[in-house]
Amino acid sequence: MAKIAAIVTDMFEDVEYTKPVAAFRGKGHQVINVGLKAGVTVKGKSEGTPVRIDRDVEEVAVDELDALFIPGGYSPDKLRIDEAAVQFAREFLESGKPVLSICHGPQLLITANALRGRKVTGYKSIVQDIKNAGAQFVDQEVVEDGNLISSRDPHDIPAFIDASLKKLEKAKVTA
Amino acid sequence: MAKIAAIVTDMFEDVEYTKPVAAFRGKGHQVINVGLKAGVTVKGKSEGTPVRIDRDVEEVAVDELDALFIPGGYSPDKLRIDEAAVQFAREFLESGKPVLSICHGPQLLITANALRGRKVTGYKSIVQDIKNAGAQFVDQEVVEDGNLISSRDPHDIPAFIDASLKKLEKAKVTA
Repeated sequence: MAKIAAIVTDMFEDVEYTKPVAAFRGKGHQVINVGLKAGVTVKGKSEGTPVRIDRDVEEVAVDELDALFIPGGYSPDKLRIDEAAVQFAREFLESGKPVLSICHGPQLLITANALRGRKVTGYKSIVQDIKNAGAQFVDQEVVEDGNLISSRDPHDIPAFIDASLKKLEKAKVTA
Repeated sequence: MAKIAAIVTDMFEDVEYTKPVAAFRGKGHQVINVGLKAGVTVKGKSEGTPVRIDRDVEEVAVDELDALFIPGGYSPDKLRIDEAAVQFAREFLESGKPVLSICHGPQLLITANALRGRKVTGYKSIVQDIKNAGAQFVDQEVVEDGNLISSRDPHDIPAFIDASLKKLEKAKVTA
């Protein structure tokens, strides 16, 4: 089973975190909450869902983990002012391990300069940012391009979960 | 005195709206709140400041107004999913009339494809988006490039107000 880093901070879109995480755990995967400070509890923007951060992004290595999950809301906008979070996302995408992004998730990958030439989707407000980053924006519920899986918004969650679980089944797993 | 459109919706950064608006009105300028629906009251993200929308962006023309003010927070991200708001911002910048942008304000201008070749600043989370939009990002408290004045965040408000008031003094005023 895969060890998945969920990179998250305050104002994440509640259901874009809770539903995929429940589905991942339901299949036996382990979800580690990675954020700006271990031990703090961050909250969702719509329902105030509390999420305790397990690991500080500065102290976690891509080698320890099998996949990266980036929920949306305004969490990615807050994460991308942190250099360690940006570098972590960049290294993950370059590692070839699965990166699962929904809604505003691509913002973190844009700041990481990691989307050039990739096919990706995301929330409708960031379409121009995705295009300007040199990526090909695809307007569909789930887009798979190599190790990158992306979806647009909460309506796409079921398709996002299906595609993510399939990708995770095939992922290499650390010891 | 100038008629200033403040384009705003929910989750604007309270002080980035309240302080400039108080300063503009203090100098005799008129501030018209333009939003996605006239008559509704939108709220700030930090303090819940209520702002009543005077005019629907679909029904207001650049010709009626002398300047555009774009406060930050998450309001610009919400505005830029609306085609009329994006077009209004684009027309304003192209009209040569003053456009006063702070924090996340450039997001609206990026979606409008209006920043190519412009010198601009904005909140640190959107630096890469500004660069990818073909603009020159300048890391200072206020940047003036032709009719576009921009600042980074709430710390820059005094400098933003000073530069904006000077620009408004020189602006042509509609009857």
